[in-house]
Amino acid sequence: MENFSFVNPVKILFGKGTIGQIKGEIPAGDKVLVVYGGGSIKKNGVYGQVADALSGYEVHEFPGIEPNPQYETCMKVVALIKEKGIDYLLAVGGGSVIDAVKFIVAAVYYEGGDPWEILSKDAEIKKALPFGAILTLPATGSEMNGNSVISRAGIQEKLSFASPLVYPKFSVLDPTTTYTLPPRQVGNGVVDTFVHITEQYLTHYEGDSMLQDKLFEGLLKTIVAEGPKALETPTDYDVRANLMWASTWALNGWFGNGRPQDWATHMIGHELTAFYGLDHGQTLAIVLPGVMKVMWKSKFEKIRSLGCEVFGVCGADQASTVDKTIKAVEDFFEAMGVKTHLSDYGLDEEAIDKVCKRMEERRWKLGECDDITPDMIREILTLRR
Amino acid sequence: MENFSFVNPVKILFGKGTIGQIKGEIPAGDKVLVVYGGGSIKKNGVYGQVADALSGYEVHEFPGIEPNPQYETCMKVVALIKEKGIDYLLAVGGGSVIDAVKFIVAAVYYEGGDPWEILSKDAEIKKALPFGAILTLPATGSEMNGNSVISRAGIQEKLSFASPLVYPKFSVLDPTTTYTLPPRQVGNGVVDTFVHITEQYLTHYEGDSMLQDKLFEGLLKTIVAEGPKALETPTDYDVRANLMWASTWALNGWFGNGRPQDWATHMIGHELTAFYGLDHGQTLAIVLPGVMKVMWKSKFEKIRSLGCEVFGVCGADQASTVDKTIKAVEDFFEAMGVKTHLSDYGLDEEAIDKVCKRMEERRWKLGECDDITPDMIREILTLRR
Repeated sequence: MENFSFVNPVKILFGKGTIGQIKGEIPAGDKVLVVYGGGSIKKNGVYGQVADALSGYEVHEFPGIEPNPQYETCMKVVALIKEKGIDYLLAVGGGSVIDAVKFIVAAVYYEGGDPWEILSKDAEIKKALPFGAILTLPATGSEMNGNSVISRAGIQEKLSFASPLVYPKFSVLDPTTTYTLPPRQVGNGVVDTFVHITEQYLTHYEGDSMLQDKLFEGLLKTIVAEGPKALETPTDYDVRANLMWASTWALNGWFGNGRPQDWATHMIGHELTAFYGLDHGQTLAIVLPGVMKVMWKSKFEKIRSLGCEVFGVCGADQASTVDKTIKAVEDFFEAMGVKTHLSDYGLDEEAIDKVCKRMEERRWKLGECDDITPDMIREILTLRR
Repeated sequence: MENFSFVNPVKILFGKGTIGQIKGEIPAGDKVLVVYGGGSIKKNGVYGQVADALSGYEVHEFPGIEPNPQYETCMKVVALIKEKGIDYLLAVGGGSVIDAVKFIVAAVYYEGGDPWEILSKDAEIKKALPFGAILTLPATGSEMNGNSVISRAGIQEKLSFASPLVYPKFSVLDPTTTYTLPPRQVGNGVVDTFVHITEQYLTHYEGDSMLQDKLFEGLLKTIVAEGPKALETPTDYDVRANLMWASTWALNGWFGNGRPQDWATHMIGHELTAFYGLDHGQTLAIVLPGVMKVMWKSKFEKIRSLGCEVFGVCGADQASTVDKTIKAVEDFFEAMGVKTHLSDYGLDEEAIDKVCKRMEERRWKLGECDDITPDMIREILTLRR
């Protein structure tokens, strides 16, 4: 196990009817800005619960944060905050809304010039406004971490940043708010959660971190069992609760401590979204099986554990174990309604060329061993045509 | 899954050589009181590392916290803090030292009369001094929770309290500090960790909290695999790291959220320590198999999972599954060098009478369903003669 230092200060308010508890978490007298997305919260009753909980506060609101939240939209919110003298933000939605608010609370105080530098130049964040979150789409783990991914359509970029100053002060996780999610969002969310885990679990590591392996396997077993049930029986509370809480643990930082992490699937997937607008979960479902196939030799021990422990498939030899495990992963993604090949989304060689050219320009070293070359990225994507 | 709200603000500094990092965690200029136990930290090099890390601070020290830390000793530390104007405490040791410091930092500011009331009357804690911990004996999880157990020899009492104000600000977990632990302490620590998990996992629950079940099974698999290796190869770093980190997760509060908890084994065990001075781990190794046997009907689903998933033993029917699982638990405790019957410690019917009389007087309702009667406690202990 590797050395680490870590703290996660987010308070979790979990369960049915817990949105009302936010009143106890936001300082009295604060001017609150509620930030949300396309308006689904007005249909599922969340908006009304938030309005009730915030009675007594001066409340402003900003609707319209996009999936893959856009820099330009975030900067409009920054302007509104300055105009109204906002003290506290409340992100209501999924990872896109929460990620956007993280960038916004940091950009408000950014003094270095264009806040885009927080993403493009890893510029230091020295101060941020406080905010809380009400999660309505379990997937990204953003409700309990300090990470954010922001897109900029004008230059087809999708970049991430992280800071301990942008952890939510609290996050409300009410599984009943997920009952009305469209199946596509449920599927994408489960795939995203699955791949957050494999980015940290399915790695080559000379040392031993059995504890983390077993905890990640526990998360994987849960979402593999519960994911399809959420599509079949959307209002099963315990199924939704298990999935919502698992998605938080998949990326709140705790289990990934002390061992190497991959993230190649996410980095390659982000480019597919930046160029072609695919859903984040769709890109991961395409890329992960390719990463597993191309990197199977160094990842073999964990691929075998994933197959045997999580999916109950073990091959007679290494090659068949790898193939069976990759097949099980693909089948699971497809069962969640998420297609796993580029052609399913109308993409062909041109997309592969475009992503590979971008990855060559970036000169990033991908994979837990920094050994995924541009040629290997081409191989990964070619396998996923 | 049940509703909950929870936050755990403890910063973890994990790994080889991390004691030196405490300098960055304690405010400059603070008067620091180092509290420790019987002096093992002077033999294993920890004392010297702490002294080096605290150069530049005004440092005082209080050695001599006992296993099962005593109220009277704690009150001596309270007096020293007031005399010297201490700002910050550093607990260096195992759960006993950390538990003692939690009581001490609360007792310093207690205004209601005798601070024993914090334990005996669940008196409210309104303020506490800040403290950090350097863990040298993984077992109690005290390094990452707000719980404490204090004993008072004069009246043969052992009682607990909990408060969000007594979380450590930080805890250092350096697995190399555990290399020189005596086998008895290693065994007790692993048994304590195991039973912390079963108190939260091995419960009757009408609902479904699959996620927590799978995470607890991950912890159990890890300590069942790694515990005996720590006795065989005391200086295997990764074994010690897995055990140390698992013991923290067994009782830092996160996985127990959202489901019922038992704690009957601990409550009965505490009385055996209060009356006869048995090690905490020894009392748990005696009591748990008895609780499993007497409560098997309501706990059957989880007993089966414990047997099949963790120990790989499944019976042909319910009765044999229960018996095989209990046998596996006993064998594991014995393999860790911890005896599992009252007679192994020279205790007989008199001890059973004494504990049962005390439990009747307390009128506590034990078990996750509040259904363990005094007669059942007698049955549990009688099985463990």
